[in-house]
Amino acid sequence: MATEDLFHPVVELPEPVRSQRYQRLVGLDDVKDQLRREAQLLVDPGRLEKWAEKHHGKNVAALKLFADRPPLFVFAGDVGAGKSALAESFGCDIAETLNVPVYLYRLKLSARGSGLVGEMTSLIGEAFAHVLNEGRKARGANGPRSVIIVVIDEADALAQSRALEQMHHEDRAGVDALLAGVDSLAGERVPVIVVMCTNREQALDPAVARRAAQTFMFDRPDDAQRREVLSSALDGLSIDAKTITKLVGLTGPRDKLPGFTYSDLTQRLIPACVMAAFPDQPLTAATILDVASALAPTPVFSTSA
Amino acid sequence: MATEDLFHPVVELPEPVRSQRYQRLVGLDDVKDQLRREAQLLVDPGRLEKWAEKHHGKNVAALKLFADRPPLFVFAGDVGAGKSALAESFGCDIAETLNVPVYLYRLKLSARGSGLVGEMTSLIGEAFAHVLNEGRKARGANGPRSVIIVVIDEADALAQSRALEQMHHEDRAGVDALLAGVDSLAGERVPVIVVMCTNREQALDPAVARRAAQTFMFDRPDDAQRREVLSSALDGLSIDAKTITKLVGLTGPRDKLPGFTYSDLTQRLIPACVMAAFPDQPLTAATILDVASALAPTPVFSTSA
Amino acid sequence: MATEDLFHPVVELPEPVRSQRYQRLVGLDDVKDQLRREAQLLVDPGRLEKWAEKHHGKNVAALKLFADRPPLFVFAGDVGAGKSALAESFGCDIAETLNVPVYLYRLKLSARGSGLVGEMTSLIGEAFAHVLNEGRKARGANGPRSVIIVVIDEADALAQSRALEQMHHEDRAGVDALLAGVDSLAGERVPVIVVMCTNREQALDPAVARRAAQTFMFDRPDDAQRREVLSSALDGLSIDAKTITKLVGLTGPRDKLPGFTYSDLTQRLIPACVMAAFPDQPLTAATILDVASALAPTPVFSTSA
Amino acid sequence: MATEDLFHPVVELPEPVRSQRYQRLVGLDDVKDQLRREAQLLVDPGRLEKWAEKHHGKNVAALKLFADRPPLFVFAGDVGAGKSALAESFGCDIAETLNVPVYLYRLKLSARGSGLVGEMTSLIGEAFAHVLNEGRKARGANGPRSVIIVVIDEADALAQSRALEQMHHEDRAGVDALLAGVDSLAGERVPVIVVMCTNREQALDPAVARRAAQTFMFDRPDDAQRREVLSSALDGLSIDAKTITKLVGLTGPRDKLPGFTYSDLTQRLIPACVMAAFPDQPLTAATILDVASALAPTPVFSTSA
Amino acid sequence: MATEDLFHPVVELPEPVRSQRYQRLVGLDDVKDQLRREAQLLVDPGRLEKWAEKHHGKNVAALKLFADRPPLFVFAGDVGAGKSALAESFGCDIAETLNVPVYLYRLKLSARGSGLVGEMTSLIGEAFAHVLNEGRKARGANGPRSVIIVVIDEADALAQSRALEQMHHEDRAGVDALLAGVDSLAGERVPVIVVMCTNREQALDPAVARRAAQTFMFDRPDDAQRREVLSSALDGLSIDAKTITKLVGLTGPRDKLPGFTYSDLTQRLIPACVMAAFPDQPLTAATILDVASALAPTPVFSTSA
Amino acid sequence: MATEDLFHPVVELPEPVRSQRYQRLVGLDDVKDQLRREAQLLVDPGRLEKWAEKHHGKNVAALKLFADRPPLFVFAGDVGAGKSALAESFGCDIAETLNVPVYLYRLKLSARGSGLVGEMTSLIGEAFAHVLNEGRKARGANGPRSVIIVVIDEADALAQSRALEQMHHEDRAGVDALLAGVDSLAGERVPVIVVMCTNREQALDPAVARRAAQTFMFDRPDDAQRREVLSSALDGLSIDAKTITKLVGLTGPRDKLPGFTYSDLTQRLIPACVMAAFPDQPLTAATILDVASALAPTPVFSTSA
Repeated sequence: MATEDLFHPVVELPEPVRSQRYQRLVGLDDVKDQLRREAQLLVDPGRLEKWAEKHHGKNVAALKLFADRPPLFVFAGDVGAGKSALAESFGCDIAETLNVPVYLYRLKLSARGSGLVGEMTSLIGEAFAHVLNEGRKARGANGPRSVIIVVIDEADALAQSRALEQMHHEDRAGVDALLAGVDSLAGERVPVIVVMCTNREQALDPAVARRAAQTFMFDRPDDAQRREVLSSALDGLSIDAKTITKLVGLTGPRDKLPGFTYSDLTQRLIPACVMAAFPDQPLTAATILDVASALAPTPVFSTSA
Repeated sequence: MATEDLFHPVVELPEPVRSQRYQRLVGLDDVKDQLRREAQLLVDPGRLEKWAEKHHGKNVAALKLFADRPPLFVFAGDVGAGKSALAESFGCDIAETLNVPVYLYRLKLSARGSGLVGEMTSLIGEAFAHVLNEGRKARGANGPRSVIIVVIDEADALAQSRALEQMHHEDRAGVDALLAGVDSLAGERVPVIVVMCTNREQALDPAVARRAAQTFMFDRPDDAQRREVLSSALDGLSIDAKTITKLVGLTGPRDKLPGFTYSDLTQRLIPACVMAAFPDQPLTAATILDVASALAPTPVFSTSA
Repeated sequence: MATEDLFHPVVELPEPVRSQRYQRLVGLDDVKDQLRREAQLLVDPGRLEKWAEKHHGKNVAALKLFADRPPLFVFAGDVGAGKSALAESFGCDIAETLNVPVYLYRLKLSARGSGLVGEMTSLIGEAFAHVLNEGRKARGANGPRSVIIVVIDEADALAQSRALEQMHHEDRAGVDALLAGVDSLAGERVPVIVVMCTNREQALDPAVARRAAQTFMFDRPDDAQRREVLSSALDGLSIDAKTITKLVGLTGPRDKLPGFTYSDLTQRLIPACVMAAFPDQPLTAATILDVASALAPTPVFSTSA
Repeated sequence: MATEDLFHPVVELPEPVRSQRYQRLVGLDDVKDQLRREAQLLVDPGRLEKWAEKHHGKNVAALKLFADRPPLFVFAGDVGAGKSALAESFGCDIAETLNVPVYLYRLKLSARGSGLVGEMTSLIGEAFAHVLNEGRKARGANGPRSVIIVVIDEADALAQSRALEQMHHEDRAGVDALLAGVDSLAGERVPVIVVMCTNREQALDPAVARRAAQTFMFDRPDDAQRREVLSSALDGLSIDAKTITKLVGLTGPRDKLPGFTYSDLTQRLIPACVMAAFPDQPLTAATILDVASALAPTPVFSTSA
Repeated sequence: MATEDLFHPVVELPEPVRSQRYQRLVGLDDVKDQLRREAQLLVDPGRLEKWAEKHHGKNVAALKLFADRPPLFVFAGDVGAGKSALAESFGCDIAETLNVPVYLYRLKLSARGSGLVGEMTSLIGEAFAHVLNEGRKARGANGPRSVIIVVIDEADALAQSRALEQMHHEDRAGVDALLAGVDSLAGERVPVIVVMCTNREQALDPAVARRAAQTFMFDRPDDAQRREVLSSALDGLSIDAKTITKLVGLTGPRDKLPGFTYSDLTQRLIPACVMAAFPDQPLTAATILDVASALAPTPVFSTSA
Repeated sequence: MATEDLFHPVVELPEPVRSQRYQRLVGLDDVKDQLRREAQLLVDPGRLEKWAEKHHGKNVAALKLFADRPPLFVFAGDVGAGKSALAESFGCDIAETLNVPVYLYRLKLSARGSGLVGEMTSLIGEAFAHVLNEGRKARGANGPRSVIIVVIDEADALAQSRALEQMHHEDRAGVDALLAGVDSLAGERVPVIVVMCTNREQALDPAVARRAAQTFMFDRPDDAQRREVLSSALDGLSIDAKTITKLVGLTGPRDKLPGFTYSDLTQRLIPACVMAAFPDQPLTAATILDVASALAPTPVFSTSA
């Protein structure tokens, strides 16, 4: 099976579009910070002992718990809250922090197999084998020559809870393969980070969820975050602060509607404002407010579905 | 796979029947206007920079958000509200505005494959590959020589939400293929517009819905719109204004029934009136009002179904 | 595939049994009248222009709406209300009115295919191709030499709403084929009328239902209609008017039961009365009333089922 | 396909065990009487005209309604109410009344096919073809030389309502085949009677149910019927009338339990009484009452199931 | 198909372990007694006439009802109430009573086939053919040389009610085969007894349930029965009567919990008590009461599941 | 089928990581103690007689109940309560107690087969055959040379209750094979212990559950147990007792949330604390309490799912 059947085209980070996206993801500083730490640990596991020794001495029992900790992170939360955007762009930051290239692998939905016996197992197995192999090549004498980030979007479809009666054998075998794949990475301590994104965290198989080194929860942007996103996106259009403030209010939770998601703001609202003026009018504050009033936020993804 | 297995016969626009339909779709001027702008942008993407520079100067951050914006539009709304009629006829307007021929491709329901592994994927893939190829040929040195509009009616059946537990792998792969197809068009910036029509917007896969450049909502015609449709359709029958007014009232929301749809008016009410008089009587106001009273509007398509 | 696999044996109308059935279908005069008009229009589409010109002048906009109007009628309503009986017998009237033979084609349930990929599509396709071919032969220089009526009983099973999640691809392809078949008839303007009968109108696919030139609703017979049916059926048995009146009451809605259907009256009540007397007794009014009291009407077919 | 794959071994009636069963089915005199009349009509259809002429004169409109009346009877009602017992034994009475042998054909459950495409259709078709062929042989110059009774037990499984969404094509084709089979018998006027037994009358396909010449409803035995069954079955055991009376009460509806069915009485209660005494004790009234008190009636078969 | 694919290894009874189990099944004397009578009848059917003649004279109508009575018994009731234990051990008693060897055949769950068309039918058919053949061999000039007991545990899985919509054809055919198999045994009057065990009596197909010569209901042991079981099992451990009494109370229904089943007592409670003392302590009354307090009874098997 | 398709790599115990895990499993002393006893009994079944004779004399009836007692234990309880951790580590203790190596076999999820007919049966059969064979080799003249522990995690997926209507034949056959496998071990008295872990005890097939020699229930750690786990894991970080006490409170049941599981404490809480300080800060009490406050416990696995 060729790589292009398993993954979308591999992207080398940093690259400008994703770097900008990463910058636009305001209000996620805490997550960004933690990911940076994890990446540092991954690149040089010995740092943990050095840290412990420096701050606490030699006999820190807690360090034992890091043994076999798989490099798996779960990004959970609402549609459009920035999970996928961060998963596909934080490698830019890692690349700059560690000064190595970062390769982004995005698993295809169809790499989940066709339901044929053994297919999902072997597809997942091949995907991880490929990544493991690349990860080995990435190891260098003086630390990793590059870092690999594997993103499994809509991960619940792959690793959904076996609590569901109707789970098929094939899915179980796929979970086996996924766990084995993640474990294989942990075992070889290759510079690979696996990120599973899901807006249905509770549908994840407990065996997978428990294995995650960390689960990050993503919410819709609050007022401050929306203000930052909007200010940045409207830059150059001479929109005054008062309009921005109104816009922050209009895009927050209204009546029974939730607030706008990150992608509502950047992929729907702003382009719609531009299109409302293009090709003959300048974009005015009034137009922006009109468009924002008319636009509804992405509905909350029902977790019961 | 031959083109005729994927698409209904391709129609070159403008052609009289669809032009007339486009004209009859009163009350949708806003949608028509936006579609015209999008088409202009599609034909010459550089216009956006020119617009920004002219009205706002060089550093308009918002323009970056148009990068990778796929030429995908969602027409959502009730049965008979004109979605399909507009999707299949707005190319007439585009053709006249841009002064190029427009080719209308309508995806067959059966092009969605038979459930065999890989079939939907390859069918969708072939359909988009064909369109992409035609799109490349359409590019000319001085702007596109023609525009292609791809209409996917009943799109929910193809791209339904993965929130539904029972979604099969094959469907997931089909969504992959659809997204890949739309992306391939965006990547090559060919003069192709994809329109997905659905009366079950909430059943669309979020990954597809989010990718839409714009989602247009279609409602049943209001009083003014019905008046315009009716006046136009009854032209030549010497029906007086008072009767038209009564008719507008009779075809609006009554009791617990919704108002008439566009197609209720043009495809059911008016022909039924004619048939009530044919072959021996003239069509009188009384007959028209009788027929309208007896006719029930198309029920609202249950979104929970 | 042989014709006998697609259709029940073709019946040439008029023939006595169906003519009598047509006559017995009292209270459906309005439907009968409309069907006769449609048939006239079908036989000579130019009549519509002549009618318009005669009564309204040359510029009647409404006539344009008849373009592409498919020769499809939906008979909807309760079990036993006469839908199938009328569908299979109104050709007798058409034959006499137009003075041409009418051929009755009844689609077999099994012509709906076996669920194999492509089978329903090709079966429906073959059925319409066969009918189209016969229709072409029927066209003559001076108007049609014959008329073909295609009856699709229990049509909901074939064209059920895609609102139902569980609809299979094959069914979708079947709807495609059905729509294509109906359109092919409209396109060639052959003297063919398609009638779909259903007691579950709301289960019909909207795309099919919208295409119908007319949907006729069938109800159970009211008092006057039952009286006419009963008087006619009991003719020759010397049953007095008072008994008939009592019988009309007994067979109407009682308590929570609906009234008797047409077929309840003619196929169940009257034969049961005869059998109650046969072989040794004359049939008396008392016996008839006894039998009627003991007989329950066909239950209303649950539309929610 | 051999006959033994379609039918249980054919039984020639009258034979002693079934004659006795027929006799033991007390309280069903009305049904027995009607079946006898229908059989007479079947054997010599001309009798109906003779009857009409004798009692009512020549122009009896009702006789026309007997044309195409299929020789199909539905026995509906509760488990153990005697449906199957009567269906398999009334031929004894017919044989004696008409003085010809009666052959009893019981369709096997497995003759309903395996779900393979076309199999149910061909199995049902073969079964009716076989019966039709035998029926033809049975016709003689002076009336039938024998009568054939076809019993389809648990008929709902074969002819269940198409109102059920999940009905498969194969089942629909089976209904087609069944209707065609019944019609073929009517068309040739062979001396064949088809009896469908079901305890789920409402699950029968309406197209089948409507075609039945008559539907007989079977209830559990009432006091008088139970008394007759019990007196007969306990004959020779010197049980006094008072005990029988108590027994009739004990086996009637108690608390929330229904009364005993015919088979509860003859196949469960009486043998259990005997076994309670066997091998060392005589059977006493006290024992009988004890056993009856301890025995629960067959539960009512849920029609909603 | 080899015997070992149909049945667990055949066991010749009596054998010590099962004899002991049979003895330990206290409180089931009534069932044991009835089974012994049935076995006697089975071995020498003529005994029934002798019994009748001796006690009631020659004309006992009830005896006719024993014709065709299949040697089928249903053991119904709660999990752990002793159904399977008795079904697999009462042959020891029969063997001793009749002084012949008894062979115990236990149908494998997998002998129910794989869902392939015809497989269940042929597996069940083979199983009964094998048993019938063995039964024939067992017949001797002076009564049977041996008796065969066939135990179908979890019988509901095999013969579940056709009231369930989702029953497959294959299951229906399996019921056919099962009924045919049981009938074949009755027809040949071979010394074979079939016992079907189920804890879901209401899920048994009515056609099977009605055919049972007798249905025995099994309940959890009451106080006296538990006392007997416990006294017997604790024999040799010097547990005083007062402790036994307490133990009887502790293992009875408590709060909302049901009482202990037979197997709870013998397979869980007593071994747990021993293990609580082993290897270093003697088993004391206190330990026994502690263990009993901590142990929960097997939950009641939900019949609605 | 190779061993590696059936089992995860076999682990020889004791080994340091699992020994440490075993030590960290505080509060499970009772279970540990019972497992040690069972292992002793398994290694030398004669010990039971010696024990009885020493403490109670020769005639201890209860010993008979140990005949055929399969070496099967069920570990039931909440996710993260230590079931799997204990199942995979108690062999370390056994190894030390008995002074023999212990081999840990963990059944793969995919060893449950693919749904193909017969596959699960043969896979389970092979797995047990392999284990039985290894068990035979392990028997020595002076007691076992080694002990084998077979762990079936997520056992409900394999042996789920047949009370569920939708259970397939294949699953039933798998249960057959599992029971046969467990019985084969009991029959040969090889030094093998089978442990089935499940967090859905009620979903286990009753036939399997009843066969368990013992079912151990696992709960989340209580205050004392959490204190012990936390003290041990935080050793070397100079965290004062007061902080530990607060931490015990924070990780206990709060509001409507359950308490932390063992794995919440060791695999999520402590590493998260370390990562919150790493790489630049020492880990302070305040950080620990902050992290603990922000972390939610694993939700209780719904048993109704």
